[in-house]
Amino acid sequence: MVTGFTHFDAAGNAAMVDVSAKPVTDRSATARAQVAMRPETAAMIRQGTARKGDVLGVARIAGIMAAKRTAELIPLCHPLPISAVTLELTAGEHAVEIAATVRTTGQTGVEMEALTAASVAALTVYDMCKSVDRGMRIEAVRLVHKAGGKSGEFVQE
Amino acid sequence: MVTGFTHFDAAGNAAMVDVSAKPVTDRSATARAQVAMRPETAAMIRQGTARKGDVLGVARIAGIMAAKRTAELIPLCHPLPISAVTLELTAGEHAVEIAATVRTTGQTGVEMEALTAASVAALTVYDMCKSVDRGMRIEAVRLVHKAGGKSGEFVQE
Amino acid sequence: MVTGFTHFDAAGNAAMVDVSAKPVTDRSATARAQVAMRPETAAMIRQGTARKGDVLGVARIAGIMAAKRTAELIPLCHPLPISAVTLELTAGEHAVEIAATVRTTGQTGVEMEALTAASVAALTVYDMCKSVDRGMRIEAVRLVHKAGGKSGEFVQE
Amino acid sequence: MVTGFTHFDAAGNAAMVDVSAKPVTDRSATARAQVAMRPETAAMIRQGTARKGDVLGVARIAGIMAAKRTAELIPLCHPLPISAVTLELTAGEHAVEIAATVRTTGQTGVEMEALTAASVAALTVYDMCKSVDRGMRIEAVRLVHKAGGKSGEFVQE
Amino acid sequence: MVTGFTHFDAAGNAAMVDVSAKPVTDRSATARAQVAMRPETAAMIRQGTARKGDVLGVARIAGIMAAKRTAELIPLCHPLPISAVTLELTAGEHAVEIAATVRTTGQTGVEMEALTAASVAALTVYDMCKSVDRGMRIEAVRLVHKAGGKSGEFVQE
Amino acid sequence: MVTGFTHFDAAGNAAMVDVSAKPVTDRSATARAQVAMRPETAAMIRQGTARKGDVLGVARIAGIMAAKRTAELIPLCHPLPISAVTLELTAGEHAVEIAATVRTTGQTGVEMEALTAASVAALTVYDMCKSVDRGMRIEAVRLVHKAGGKSGEFVQE
Repeated sequence: MVTGFTHFDAAGNAAMVDVSAKPVTDRSATARAQVAMRPETAAMIRQGTARKGDVLGVARIAGIMAAKRTAELIPLCHPLPISAVTLELTAGEHAVEIAATVRTTGQTGVEMEALTAASVAALTVYDMCKSVDRGMRIEAVRLVHKAGGKSGEFVQE
Repeated sequence: MVTGFTHFDAAGNAAMVDVSAKPVTDRSATARAQVAMRPETAAMIRQGTARKGDVLGVARIAGIMAAKRTAELIPLCHPLPISAVTLELTAGEHAVEIAATVRTTGQTGVEMEALTAASVAALTVYDMCKSVDRGMRIEAVRLVHKAGGKSGEFVQE
Repeated sequence: MVTGFTHFDAAGNAAMVDVSAKPVTDRSATARAQVAMRPETAAMIRQGTARKGDVLGVARIAGIMAAKRTAELIPLCHPLPISAVTLELTAGEHAVEIAATVRTTGQTGVEMEALTAASVAALTVYDMCKSVDRGMRIEAVRLVHKAGGKSGEFVQE
Repeated sequence: MVTGFTHFDAAGNAAMVDVSAKPVTDRSATARAQVAMRPETAAMIRQGTARKGDVLGVARIAGIMAAKRTAELIPLCHPLPISAVTLELTAGEHAVEIAATVRTTGQTGVEMEALTAASVAALTVYDMCKSVDRGMRIEAVRLVHKAGGKSGEFVQE
Repeated sequence: MVTGFTHFDAAGNAAMVDVSAKPVTDRSATARAQVAMRPETAAMIRQGTARKGDVLGVARIAGIMAAKRTAELIPLCHPLPISAVTLELTAGEHAVEIAATVRTTGQTGVEMEALTAASVAALTVYDMCKSVDRGMRIEAVRLVHKAGGKSGEFVQE
Repeated sequence: MVTGFTHFDAAGNAAMVDVSAKPVTDRSATARAQVAMRPETAAMIRQGTARKGDVLGVARIAGIMAAKRTAELIPLCHPLPISAVTLELTAGEHAVEIAATVRTTGQTGVEMEALTAASVAALTVYDMCKSVDRGMRIEAVRLVHKAGGKSGEFVQE
């Protein structure tokens, strides 16, 4: 392989990697992201979640639904039978913190599903708050935990 | 409105805002993002793009296609007749830099389309490079320019 | 036309009706539905909505998102630039009542979008409550109001 | 759990239930629905099905295709490898009767797939006949049979 | 432009062409395709269409629905407000002949929608007949007519 | 069965065939297609692929992504856990040659996935080159190899 990346064949052409010989195992992945924002915006979100105008509730549903569509969005991702998705969203002083965990029993991992769920939840927070704060930034979208599969456990941060 | 957010009605329930009274105008939005990575990973991407194993080419297509599906992913987004999408991706020393620009002639803006295109392109870079660098992070997903519509021009950074 | 239905041509074959000669006008449609259930289930929903476990909030998002995908589900529906979607859901003594209103500025009406939004919201209520009440029934999915377009206003019930 | 519903965690947040520990078994579900209409409309459908203008044939395809997309529409549904879908549609004196049966070999049931297939078939009947009868109503969308899985057989009506 | 193709920018990168400055006009396109098959297979289709087992009716619906999803499948296609889709399918002695016509009022043409409708209808014929004839071939998928837009009328064959 | 086709029940109604009793086996399928074009167009593609304006690279991604969506497009296809997709595209003197191979471990074959991947890759080549050559034709879309499953190996041409 020219590049060292597994998503290209010997000629350098993109391909969906063949996972048919890999064992079916339980796998999970957790990704995190944050949406940095003005303190006033974060305060409005905290207030709304407690009573009315539940920004985080809408973003949670968007993230769960996006996890299921990862293979449609990411060209070389395998479709996987997702067995669980959970999203935690908390509004702090200056940011909304997001953690997405996805599980499967399959032949390849769910890192991309977790990262996609966290990203789309973050984009949804942006969408719902952009009328009051257009300068928000999505930061630190990363994999923090991964278990199952040949490469074993991965923990970051 | 309890919360100040436009995506909730007086009772605090989420709703797709009524844009039917807004004028149809030319609108554009540009969003940026970066994928921070190890220098070796960035070098592999630069090498591949020049010859074989075109990570950035695949990510560009993923971003363009994602822009068209924004309204399916973000719950309260309006479907819009997108008239142009361009993505620039460049691999630097420690990161891939992404800029996505979307245009429409419609009743509401395309910020979410540009942010979604940039995010999905970034996720695709992650997917294609994760076999060599699982610690990559997507950073600084933000709107940098917006034109058209009642709120006028927006420039950030 | 053999059948009297507009969705078939002279030979009896299904076709998407040509609306290109129809004027672009503001149109709206409201559909209603109800999910009949045991009083205990309805009580649990009312309790959850007020505090935690917001069944109606999730169903509202599902209905809004489904409205945008109507043309993918209903074979002969035209894709339309939807300009607003609102869903009201209320849990009564024996049922959840659903009303969905959709608006567009286009060449054909949004009845199917409103009916699809109400139906998918009802199905989501069923999904979220089926662990405690498998005998729920979705009843009375119907168009209650329609405005705009050549056929004028329609009011039912 | 505050609410008693399985789709919420201890904090009352919606989540896709973890089914990874459940055994893979053969499962099936049958749902029914009806579209109540004027006798003239029902007569037109019966006539069309026999010769030209096959309303029920189009609705059958729409229902089968919708079954496959259930997990995209219903936020907390698991994606499932559907192994069979059949729809029976019959036009009676005052209504079209619909029965949808779905099978899978998986970790959770296909009630929502059967209910979604029946609902979308009913909506398609509405769409194709609305030019002659806008007052049709979709009634009695319900689960009538379910087999496989821990909760055993369910029969209603 | 290096290549002469309009879908690449000056640097050779793929992009969705900007059509925002093009006038909104009525446009139509017709594409044709054929599915070559054994005479016995064609006879079975002709028999089924007349009575039971309507292969062409199912393929017609698949083609109409595919036309609406063209922009999801073809990376650089613009989403368009389709105003009509018709498909003609006829089973001859050795082949099924398919003609798909699509109309829009928009800023760019519907060639790809017509070609996609014809292709997916042809694939559906293959799917439904493959249990009796695996050697079928889809041939001569081509644009035969195009009207509207700056480039004027196009007629082939 | 009236027609001899497996996709219809005894009454002649379309249905998704029940595969739940079939064994889970490794399966693969390869389909081929070609896009016939003017020599000048083929030359432009060859030139672009080597340097800038990579028509074949974009078409490859489109074909891979389409393979994953086959069950959404072809009404009676089963959703399958695809484990690999590869596409080879080569620009010759008068045509682009396409070969698509898909693998799964499942209860039914992936012929339709391979044929859909080849067709959508061909349509994408058409889309990207239509500004210089509107008379291109997609020819000879056919299954050339199939392995796994009860019917054994199939080789054509």
